Amino acid sequence: MEASTRLQKLLAPIAGDMDRMQDVLLEQVRSASPAVRDMTDHVSRFRGKQLRAALVLLSGDATGNTTDEHVRVAAIVEMIHLATLVHDDILDGALVRRRVASVNQRWDNQVAVLLGDFLYARAFALSTALSSRLCSRLLSDTTRDICVGEIEQSTSRYDFDISQEKYERLCGAKTASLYAAACELGARYPGGNEEVGRLMWNFGWELGLAFQIKDDCLDILGDEAEVGKTIGRDVEDGKVTLPVLHVYRNAPDELKARIRDAYTMPGIENRTARLSDVCDLQPGVEFAIQRAEELVRTALGRLASLPPGPARQALEGIGEFVLERRF
Amino acid sequence: MEASTRLQKLLAPIAGDMDRMQDVLLEQVRSASPAVRDMTDHVSRFRGKQLRAALVLLSGDATGNTTDEHVRVAAIVEMIHLATLVHDDILDGALVRRRVASVNQRWDNQVAVLLGDFLYARAFALSTALSSRLCSRLLSDTTRDICVGEIEQSTSRYDFDISQEKYERLCGAKTASLYAAACELGARYPGGNEEVGRLMWNFGWELGLAFQIKDDCLDILGDEAEVGKTIGRDVEDGKVTLPVLHVYRNAPDELKARIRDAYTMPGIENRTARLSDVCDLQPGVEFAIQRAEELVRTALGRLASLPPGPARQALEGIGEFVLERRF
Repeated sequence: MEASTRLQKLLAPIAGDMDRMQDVLLEQVRSASPAVRDMTDHVSRFRGKQLRAALVLLSGDATGNTTDEHVRVAAIVEMIHLATLVHDDILDGALVRRRVASVNQRWDNQVAVLLGDFLYARAFALSTALSSRLCSRLLSDTTRDICVGEIEQSTSRYDFDISQEKYERLCGAKTASLYAAACELGARYPGGNEEVGRLMWNFGWELGLAFQIKDDCLDILGDEAEVGKTIGRDVEDGKVTLPVLHVYRNAPDELKARIRDAYTMPGIENRTARLSDVCDLQPGVEFAIQRAEELVRTALGRLASLPPGPARQALEGIGEFVLERRF
Repeated sequence: MEASTRLQKLLAPIAGDMDRMQDVLLEQVRSASPAVRDMTDHVSRFRGKQLRAALVLLSGDATGNTTDEHVRVAAIVEMIHLATLVHDDILDGALVRRRVASVNQRWDNQVAVLLGDFLYARAFALSTALSSRLCSRLLSDTTRDICVGEIEQSTSRYDFDISQEKYERLCGAKTASLYAAACELGARYPGGNEEVGRLMWNFGWELGLAFQIKDDCLDILGDEAEVGKTIGRDVEDGKVTLPVLHVYRNAPDELKARIRDAYTMPGIENRTARLSDVCDLQPGVEFAIQRAEELVRTALGRLASLPPGPARQALEGIGEFVLERRF
């Protein structure tokens, strides 16, 4: 079965809530300003996998903590994710985002910054209307972590001596933190058990980290049409991701120099292709995938203490999807 | 007396709280990440007038609503303002901001976006720790208004048929809204009287609008060294501000065409200088200043219902400072 069809099937039990989530999101970003409306219409077409929103809902279901506010929490998490995507388009100059022209290609950098700010502001506004402040607190701290992770990654560009531990810490901050927050909020919002919240936070963290590692592999080896966004950006942007890191640290000095050259030598048209020419990336990708599998295994192990049922099953399925996905 | 010395004297009664405000701000943006620390150190050197923070404190004092949380509210408002400044540097490519190189000149656009996001996130995080949610709510809505105002202004560039009413609505959203929120929060936080809050909101709105109109005049006629930031940006960016609007709508067709040319014809080195060559901007500036004076008069009139005292006096002084300032 295609990975995308499998995901759809996995999320079928929460399809109604996902639709309601999307309605809340659209309502919240609606604006009286025609200029803003034009842009939010555009952004809402991104839709994408909406995995983070699904994790809020499923984590709630799987821990028996479902309230009529979960749909709103899911919409808030998804809006924060959308804001990071819009700002990320400025960051790495991505030309294609989920097959829809990215905001800064259609408008300009100025407006993409403002639209991202608008999405953050609307997400926080919605969170202040919830019955507890947990969501506002956790998500403002998570947004900080995402920014710090991205800033540190930006200042670690072209650093081939980065440790795997630091690579994972940065991926964790920039990606896994929102997965973790989504899962914790699902389990805890508004008054759920703290211990289960911690368990689900860890589940989300490992899942998100695996997701990012897989993302980094797809950026090197994926098919642009399938992935739905510009690939090969990491090498272009000087990001030394786990697959490359593994190959680099096991390479003789002469090869190390050629790998660095592929990243930095002026005038190279397609740096990812050049990198593939100078070294065999396959062992690096296999190493990274193994690490992602290990993380998903640990994550799924945590679910064992939850009551069996369709929500827990769907969370397990998402773990497998993260590993199998080609988009 | 120099306007800057006058301002210092005006704020003398709250100098201790302003220092505490700055300490809270620095504490809140402190980060374990060296890369982030390097940037926040840089940004905190902006310091500037910190009028918005002062308005929170003085509005509290003047309405008899002072709590030990006011200093934190003031820091939050100032952080939101800093975030908008950092993102604004991306927006209009400003080269100089308050005599310190702007963030995107020292680092790059990517990092400036992230640093602004970090400041927003820290501001919202601090607001979720206050005793009431009023601050979180009002400031997330205000942030939305600022973004919408900036987006609409961006899509209204080179529009010489913009009405004064729309110009004021956009200036209100992008600038006056945060002044208004600062004054309302000072008067109402955490449980102050709603009616006084409304009064102070209106005071802040009019004051902020006058501030922006004055800003637009300084951008055309100010002295760069005195103003402390790149001037002449508005014409360069296609912003048709009130002084120009007034001259334009009273100009014969032939002059109208030359004014538009100064904004749009390719190859003009200094568009503001060209504009001054083709038309007399003085009547436009005078008209705009008159409007700012009218707004400050209305704003100060509102204070009449507050008990007299040093805080009310300082608010009145700020009104006069807004009109007299050359920076």
